[in-house]
Amino acid sequence: MKPIQVGLLGVGTVGSGTFKVLARNQNEIKSRAGRGIAITMVADLDVARAQAVVGAGVTVVADARAVIANPEIDIVVELIGGYGIARQLVLEAIAAGKHVVTANKALLAVHGTEIFAAAHARGVMVAFEAAVAGGIPIIKALREGLAANSIQWIAGIINGTTNFILSEMRDKGLDFGVALKDAQRLGYAEADPTFDIEGVDAAHKATLMSAIAFGIPVQFDKAHVEGITQLAATDIKYAEQLGYRIKLLGITKRTPQGIELRVHPSLVPAKRLIANVEGAMNAVMVNGDAVGTTLYYGKGAGAEPTASAVIADLVDITRLHTADAAQRVPHLAFHPDAMSDLRVLPMSEVVTSYYLRLRVADEAGVLAQVTGIVADAGISIDAVLQREADEVGGEGGATEGTQGVPQTDLIILTHDTREGTMNAAIARMQALPSVLAPITRIRKEELA
Amino acid sequence: MKPIQVGLLGVGTVGSGTFKVLARNQNEIKSRAGRGIAITMVADLDVARAQAVVGAGVTVVADARAVIANPEIDIVVELIGGYGIARQLVLEAIAAGKHVVTANKALLAVHGTEIFAAAHARGVMVAFEAAVAGGIPIIKALREGLAANSIQWIAGIINGTTNFILSEMRDKGLDFGVALKDAQRLGYAEADPTFDIEGVDAAHKATLMSAIAFGIPVQFDKAHVEGITQLAATDIKYAEQLGYRIKLLGITKRTPQGIELRVHPSLVPAKRLIANVEGAMNAVMVNGDAVGTTLYYGKGAGAEPTASAVIADLVDITRLHTADAAQRVPHLAFHPDAMSDLRVLPMSEVVTSYYLRLRVADEAGVLAQVTGIVADAGISIDAVLQREADEVGGEGGATEGTQGVPQTDLIILTHDTREGTMNAAIARMQALPSVLAPITRIRKEELA
Repeated sequence: MKPIQVGLLGVGTVGSGTFKVLARNQNEIKSRAGRGIAITMVADLDVARAQAVVGAGVTVVADARAVIANPEIDIVVELIGGYGIARQLVLEAIAAGKHVVTANKALLAVHGTEIFAAAHARGVMVAFEAAVAGGIPIIKALREGLAANSIQWIAGIINGTTNFILSEMRDKGLDFGVALKDAQRLGYAEADPTFDIEGVDAAHKATLMSAIAFGIPVQFDKAHVEGITQLAATDIKYAEQLGYRIKLLGITKRTPQGIELRVHPSLVPAKRLIANVEGAMNAVMVNGDAVGTTLYYGKGAGAEPTASAVIADLVDITRLHTADAAQRVPHLAFHPDAMSDLRVLPMSEVVTSYYLRLRVADEAGVLAQVTGIVADAGISIDAVLQREADEVGGEGGATEGTQGVPQTDLIILTHDTREGTMNAAIARMQALPSVLAPITRIRKEELA
Repeated sequence: MKPIQVGLLGVGTVGSGTFKVLARNQNEIKSRAGRGIAITMVADLDVARAQAVVGAGVTVVADARAVIANPEIDIVVELIGGYGIARQLVLEAIAAGKHVVTANKALLAVHGTEIFAAAHARGVMVAFEAAVAGGIPIIKALREGLAANSIQWIAGIINGTTNFILSEMRDKGLDFGVALKDAQRLGYAEADPTFDIEGVDAAHKATLMSAIAFGIPVQFDKAHVEGITQLAATDIKYAEQLGYRIKLLGITKRTPQGIELRVHPSLVPAKRLIANVEGAMNAVMVNGDAVGTTLYYGKGAGAEPTASAVIADLVDITRLHTADAAQRVPHLAFHPDAMSDLRVLPMSEVVTSYYLRLRVADEAGVLAQVTGIVADAGISIDAVLQREADEVGGEGGATEGTQGVPQTDLIILTHDTREGTMNAAIARMQALPSVLAPITRIRKEELA
C-alpha cells in the first residue's frame, strides 16, 4: 500500500523536526502504523529554505492553499501558529475533506468550537496532541487512558519558558527581570515573551485540557490568566522557608458549583514531584476519582519532542482515517451530543488557600490589626511568619523605610477561602496605615 | 443502542472495583465511549459473595465457561490471575470470538506469544493496560503516544510492594526483614510475598514493556530477575551519602548488541524525580529518540486504579470492536509481520555502572590490592569511600570483627563496565584474604 500522504503548512522548527523524525524512524513508524507515512508536499513562504530542509523529493510551494487543494494529500499538518490565517487554512482543509493535525493551542483554545464542529460535520479528524505539553502524550492520557474516571482536577506546569525563569530565580536568587534576560539569551524565551510570561500560552493549554477533562466547550475567554511578571525573589525565598516552591500552574478543577479554570503562580509543597520539575520541563498532574493522582512529565517544547506528538497523531489518523465516527475518539473526549453545560466559575468564586506578604510598620499592634481583619472575614490562618531585620537579607527584610519607619515582612498562609472573600479582606488590610506597600497575594495549592 | 455486554471472570478486589467504577461513572463513560458498557454476567467460585457485589440485576455463575459460552457477551474480562486456568479460559474466550481484557501480567509475560497469535488469527483484541503499573496509562503511552520514537530505554518502579518496603527501610533505617513485616501488617505485602520481593512481578511487567517498546516477542525466560531480599540498611545509608537512592527498577534498553531486560535494585541519583517516588507508588521513565525522557507516575495497584485501566480498555474495545485489524493498535505495538528479531542479551553482556561494598581488614595496603584488581580488569572508578569506625554507626561501620581484626567498609562506584568483566573482578577481590565478607554489588543507573 502506498504511504499516506501528508502536507505540511509551515517548515519552521517543528515542521523540520517532524520531517526529520519521520525520515529517521520511518521503518519503525510504518511497523506500528501498518502503513508508511510520507510528507510529500510542504508550503512555506521561504521556499528555498524549506526545500533545503525536505530535499528534492518533496514538492515545496509558497501557497498553503495549493497543499489543501492537492487531491493526493490525505492529512494537512498546520504548523503556522496564531489565530489568523491558520484558522482560515484549517477550516479550508476540513472543508476539502482533509484530516488535520495541529500544534496550535491558541487557535483551538479560541476557535476550537467552530473548528471541531466543522470537522465533525465533514467527518474528518482534527488531532492536537502537540498543542499541550509537547511530546508528553497528555491529550491521549486524558481522552483515552483515563476514560473510566470522573476527572477531579488537573494542575500542570505547561509553559517551559516560565518554569525555566522560575527555576533560575530560585537557584540564583534573581528577580524576574534578570532571569527573563537570561532566558532570552539562552533561547528559552522569545524576543517578545508576552504570551509566555503573562500566562496566556499556559491558559490556552489549560483551556484545552479543561474541555477534554470535563466535557465542556473550549472557553478561553472564561480563563483567569495571570503570569509571573510580578513575582519577587523575596517571595520565592519565603516560600522556600515555609516548605513550598512557586510554580506557574495551569489549573482546572471540578467543584459542585462549576469548573475552575485558572493560570497563576502557585505555592506547591516542596515534597511534591511537580515542585521538583526544573528548567524548561513540563509536568501535568491529573486526579481522577478512580485512578487517584497521576503525573506526566517530559519536554514541553522543542523540534523533536513536538514532532513526536505530531507524528503520534499522524499514526492515529493513518489507522482511523477509514473508520467511522463511532470508531474514532471524539475531538473533545466526549461525544458532541453528550457535552456538559457545567459553567466556568468567575475567579471570585474560586476556593483556594493563600500566601500573603505584607510590608508593615514594625510596631506594636500591627499583627493584631491584620489578623483581626482576617478573622472578621472568617478566613482561617494556617501559619504566620514575621521576619525581623536580622533574619532576612536584601530588600525583603525589615529595613528602614524611606520615611524612616522601621519595617518588617508579615507572611500569612491561610486555609481554603473564597477568592471574593479574600479580595475584600486584602482591600481592608491594604487600607491600614501600618501597611506600607501593596500586599503580595500568591495562591497556594496542596495538590494532595 | 444497547450497552456492550461484558462478562467478568473473578470478582475479587479488581473485579469489584471495576463493577463499582463502571456503575458510578456510567454516564461519563458512555459519553466518551459513545455506547454504554454493562457487566451483565460474572463468574466466581464464591457465588454468594459475588452476587452481593454485583447486585440482583447481574447473572452470577460459578463456572467461568458459562460466561464464555454466553452469546450475548462481547468482552470477557479475566481477573483470575496466574498461568494455569487463566490461560485456558483466555484461549477459550478468544476461540469463542470474545474480546479479552486482562490484568494478568504473569500470563502475558509467559504465554503472550501464544495468546496474541490466537487473538490475531481470530480477529479479536486482547487488551492489558491494567497489567503494567495499574492505573497509569503506560501501555497506551508506549504503543500509541510515543509511536514516532525509536524507544531507547525504559526504567520503572513497577512494583508497589517493594517500593513501599524500600521507602520504609530508608525512612526508618530498617533492614529488609523488619520492613517486610511492616508491609505485611499494613496490607502492602501479601502473606506469601515471593513474587514481589524476588522481582518476579516487576520482571513480568518489564517483559511486556520491552516487547511493546522494541517490537520483540515477550521473553520472560530471558529476563534477569533479582529482588530486594539481600539489601541491607547499610547500603541504603551509604547510597544516600553518595547522593543516591536505591530503587527496584525494571529496566529494558536498546543497545547495538541487543536488548537488555533486567530487574534488580539500582542506585539512582537522588535528584531524579523517580528517586523521589515513595511508598507504594509506581513510576515509569521512557526515553525515546525524538521525545527525550518522559515519566509517568501514579498508583500501580489497588481496586479502583486497576479498574481505571480495565475500563479504559473496555472503552477502546467498545469503539473498535467493529473495526478491522488495520484500524486497531497491534497487540505488541508492532504489526506481527514487522516484529524485530533483536536478541535479549544475557546479563553478562549488560553494560552498567556499579556500587560495590567490601568489608575489609582495616590495614595498610588493602585499598591498593582492591583497586589494583579493578584497574587490571580495565574498570574505571568513579568514586571511593572508606568508612572508618567513627564515621558510621551500626553494623556497617568499622568494627572489631569476630576474629578481633579491625574492619572497615570500602565503597567503590564504577563507571560503565560489562557485567561479565565485573563478575570476574569481584571473584578476584572476594579471594583476597583481607576481604572479610561477601562483597555487596548493586548496579547504578544515572537515567540521564
